[in-house]
Amino acid sequence: METTPITVRAPRGTTLHCKGWHQEAALRMLMNNLDPEVAEKPEELIVYGGTGKAARNWACFHKIVETLKRLENDETLLVQSGKPVGVFRTHELAPRVLIANSNLVPRWATWDEFRRLEALGLTMYGQMTAGSWIYIGTQGILQGTYETFAECARQHFGGTLKGRLVVTAGLGGMGGAQPLAATMNEAAFLGVEVDPERIQRRIRTGYLDRMSTDLDEALALVLRARERGEALSVGLLGNIADVLPELVRRGIVPDVVTDQTAAHDLRYGYIPCGHTVESAAAFRENDPKGYEGAVLDSMQRHVEAMLKLQELGAVVFDYGNNLRGQVADHRGMKEAFRIPGFVPAFIRPLFCRGAGPFRWAALSGNPNDIAVTDQAVIETFPHKESLVRWIRKAREKVRFQGLPARICWLEYGERAEMGLKFNWLVRKGKIEAPIVIGRDHLDAGSVASPNRETEGMKDGSDAIADWPLLNALLNTACGASWVSIHHGGGVGIGYSIHAGMVCVADGTEQADFRLERVLTADPGTGVMRHADAGYELAIQTARERGLDLPMITG
Amino acid sequence: METTPITVRAPRGTTLHCKGWHQEAALRMLMNNLDPEVAEKPEELIVYGGTGKAARNWACFHKIVETLKRLENDETLLVQSGKPVGVFRTHELAPRVLIANSNLVPRWATWDEFRRLEALGLTMYGQMTAGSWIYIGTQGILQGTYETFAECARQHFGGTLKGRLVVTAGLGGMGGAQPLAATMNEAAFLGVEVDPERIQRRIRTGYLDRMSTDLDEALALVLRARERGEALSVGLLGNIADVLPELVRRGIVPDVVTDQTAAHDLRYGYIPCGHTVESAAAFRENDPKGYEGAVLDSMQRHVEAMLKLQELGAVVFDYGNNLRGQVADHRGMKEAFRIPGFVPAFIRPLFCRGAGPFRWAALSGNPNDIAVTDQAVIETFPHKESLVRWIRKAREKVRFQGLPARICWLEYGERAEMGLKFNWLVRKGKIEAPIVIGRDHLDAGSVASPNRETEGMKDGSDAIADWPLLNALLNTACGASWVSIHHGGGVGIGYSIHAGMVCVADGTEQADFRLERVLTADPGTGVMRHADAGYELAIQTARERGLDLPMITG
Ligand SMILES: NC(=O)c1ccc[n+]([C@@H]2O[C@H](COP(=O)([O-])OP(=O)(O)OC[C@H]3O[C@@H](n4cnc5c(N)ncnc54)[C@H](O)[C@@H]3O)[C@@H](O)[C@H]2O)c1
Ligand SMILES: NC(=O)c1ccc[n+]([C@@H]2O[C@H](COP(=O)([O-])OP(=O)(O)OC[C@H]3O[C@@H](n4cnc5c(N)ncnc54)[C@H](O)[C@@H]3O)[C@@H](O)[C@H]2O)c1
Repeated sequence: METTPITVRAPRGTTLHCKGWHQEAALRMLMNNLDPEVAEKPEELIVYGGTGKAARNWACFHKIVETLKRLENDETLLVQSGKPVGVFRTHELAPRVLIANSNLVPRWATWDEFRRLEALGLTMYGQMTAGSWIYIGTQGILQGTYETFAECARQHFGGTLKGRLVVTAGLGGMGGAQPLAATMNEAAFLGVEVDPERIQRRIRTGYLDRMSTDLDEALALVLRARERGEALSVGLLGNIADVLPELVRRGIVPDVVTDQTAAHDLRYGYIPCGHTVESAAAFRENDPKGYEGAVLDSMQRHVEAMLKLQELGAVVFDYGNNLRGQVADHRGMKEAFRIPGFVPAFIRPLFCRGAGPFRWAALSGNPNDIAVTDQAVIETFPHKESLVRWIRKAREKVRFQGLPARICWLEYGERAEMGLKFNWLVRKGKIEAPIVIGRDHLDAGSVASPNRETEGMKDGSDAIADWPLLNALLNTACGASWVSIHHGGGVGIGYSIHAGMVCVADGTEQADFRLERVLTADPGTGVMRHADAGYELAIQTARERGLDLPMITG
Repeated sequence: METTPITVRAPRGTTLHCKGWHQEAALRMLMNNLDPEVAEKPEELIVYGGTGKAARNWACFHKIVETLKRLENDETLLVQSGKPVGVFRTHELAPRVLIANSNLVPRWATWDEFRRLEALGLTMYGQMTAGSWIYIGTQGILQGTYETFAECARQHFGGTLKGRLVVTAGLGGMGGAQPLAATMNEAAFLGVEVDPERIQRRIRTGYLDRMSTDLDEALALVLRARERGEALSVGLLGNIADVLPELVRRGIVPDVVTDQTAAHDLRYGYIPCGHTVESAAAFRENDPKGYEGAVLDSMQRHVEAMLKLQELGAVVFDYGNNLRGQVADHRGMKEAFRIPGFVPAFIRPLFCRGAGPFRWAALSGNPNDIAVTDQAVIETFPHKESLVRWIRKAREKVRFQGLPARICWLEYGERAEMGLKFNWLVRKGKIEAPIVIGRDHLDAGSVASPNRETEGMKDGSDAIADWPLLNALLNTACGASWVSIHHGGGVGIGYSIHAGMVCVADGTEQADFRLERVLTADPGTGVMRHADAGYELAIQTARERGLDLPMITG
């Protein structure tokens, strides 16, 4: 059995290595996930998100490839936590691959037990799009942040952040997408960061416009940009727990305040006031307990200032780093939860309309294929301003990693429309090779995650996990090309159950049939889940779009 | 919205109330689960197994019925914990119903959280076949016990218990099936029971042959029957913790020893030596702690005698009542685990061959349809002695509850063969109306349950839950009529994940297509799961039957 690690890059072009485009797409996307341009640690098969992997080990990788190559058009390959375990005869309209990753019986669903089983070679951590073969690089993070800011703009500022000031902290791996996402929404942006190297890196990669080491200078820049309605991002060297209280003292109220320091980790994620990265490292080492105390002191000042700015009229939200939980649990600051989480605040209304992270990749490898699809999206939805703005900016600013790809949020109805249009473009030869269409598991109907996506559901159904399972079963019934059920993505083992789907537009009529069903049903489960939870917007969407929800529209 | 409780009985005959037989089968089997002849508490929608329900409430029941009646042949109904939440367009070969019951995000998967969510009206307990609409009454329990004894006979006694003595205790709800299951396997049987009313009930319902109140008399009867090779069951009024040590003292070694007292419950399940049911009740009330001590004293004597008889050559096994765990945890008797559990001992080899509880019901309501299928099974597998014996005895002894139904264990290969034969019988008009074919979730490839079905897996993979999810996805891909994913059946919330499938034989060619795929793939996942875990018998089965397991046969 072949077990050698290799450097992987998906084949390009129109030559099939498999017996059909569904299998070929799975093959190329598996390989694309492991392309060194895409994956964090390809030699360990790690794609992203801690240890999110694409295959259990190299022997399994090679065997998956071999099996996909011989898989018939009425057969289905089963993948159990990154290992190809069986091939069964199904039928043409069935998925070619069915995947279950990292799932454990709940009583045993802890990191300890998971790691024990992983060490025995029995499982792997699939994250969301790593083990389900539809990761497309950091474009996803940029776009998620962009969409969050865009929804904030729609809810509070008439659809744009033009003439608005966003203040946040943390320009790290994820947080570094904030300045670009903000300026793409036309905002003036101030990002406070203690590590000068991080600020410089964001400038080098085109995510940030300017660096400043002086608060007065930085404020002058962003306040003027706000006045003039200019998009400008400034990275200020400093500590957010100093800067935010100072804004309060000066009576400067930003329009939007959030935070992406790595506050979820008291030991390594948050630098206390008065420290550089280096001095903090020494402090941490010499006096770990004292260090955590200092971190919490700073966090407390930080959150107090956020609450004060909220009172003064700023739109303040938590961006999924558990800053609220830290001061609530360790300092009794229950009032921190007056700051809303970003999903309930901004993403849930999108979910109610069945909107979510629609993404696609060009199997040809030809960037022009994505240009054609970009154009098609703009022409199909010219009235959707923030969408059009996103596509234009992404075209300009986003460098492809691996196979050319795009992401944008589309609603129920829009996804099926777009899928059919892509399929038509393939059929007409406007696009060189088939397009593969998928999404993140973080979507309207495909995830149960009480600390993130399903936090604070209206009816209290945060922990009900039937919904993502129904989503996966339904996508299988509709004929997606591959379908996956995962456990523990995003928030870790024990904390989430979620499902993925991918569907191929190869230009055939059968693809029309499958895409129409999958891309209707899949976001449809999102509208359904939120309507069932009692969200008026979802109920209204269901009625307007003619969804069939027996207990609601029946 | 209709919310009235009603008395439910499935329609019989050949007139459709729905737009196709798949929907009609779902309708009739849902109703059959709630037939007062079948369900424990039909007015509360409870079918069996504690609070295992068929629908969340009466409003949901009525709405499911209404929706099934209007469901098109290319639509699929989604049921979330007993509530009909959506109808989506799929295609003809897709399941008509997809079900997810009682699933929770693992971190919240406790009885407390479940009950809180249930009180909010957000979930229901689906057990295994209650919420997935394929319960067929107590025939399943009888047959499971019969099959366990039969496998014991195959492993240890050349295929029959003729001329063998089985000694056990507990003739309660489940345990009461033991005497009949034993005599169906031709054994001499001694069942010790402290409650005379229970013994009499088993005689009244034809499960037990004789009662005795005297050990000498009872022993004379069963030892003579053993000598003569006669099937005879005797219920002895007594306490097993007295009787078993006495057998040891007298040097009488049964061939098989097990136990079905309700030992899992120290407070109510096991009567200590020297007590009647009534005196035990008083003792328990006056001195609960002292009572538990007395129970454990008796259990200790009981298990010591079992271990002694094991040494002396008896085949001794635990029958899933946690007797071993009680004395190990509370009395430090770790050696209790020298007694093997019944799944590893007898059921796992069956699972390795893809054998499991194949069951079917006659939608006509005509008992003759089952007689025809019984005959077909016997004619198809005349060489399978214990199977033929089971069918003959079941025909004679089992009274139908609700729609006429049958259960028998069939292996990989045999299930598809039988399904196609039933479909042919329907097509040829030998059977009046379609036959619905399903199984328990307790099957080879459809359950992860570390305290029962996946206890002590060879590779340590007890808690890996990918397998039942793959089973459900695959059955959906193959075109089963309805498919379900449940949590917590059998052993309770947190402890299991399992999947169900049901498929209709309506005599059409499409049914041939679907049945062949489903009934091949479904038990195939059982062979696959056990081959992956390293069981030689499963690997050998996979090779012999030509399963395609890439890492094993590839
Ligand atoms: N919103 C989402 O969807 C989402 C998704 C995943 C993770 N997160 C969370 O977002 C947070 C950030 O993630 P990341 O990948 O960018 O982390 P990271 O560790 O790469 O970056 C954190 C940055 O914060 C800076 N920092 C720390 N303390 C500071 C302080 N007091 N003042 C100013 N700067 C400070 C650090 O120097 C570092 O550059 C994490 O908590 C992560 O869990 C959010
Ligand atoms: N093997 C399986 O698949 C399986 C499945 C479900 C449950 N079980 C377990 O089997 C056990 C029995 O279930 P049940 O439904 O028959 O329970 P039950 O409570 O209806 O019956 C238990 C019987 O044991 C008798 N008994 C108690 N102590 C005794 C003693 N010391 N000596 C003699 N008789 C005694 C009681 O009088 C009672 O009749 C339970 O622990 C149950 O959890 C096994």
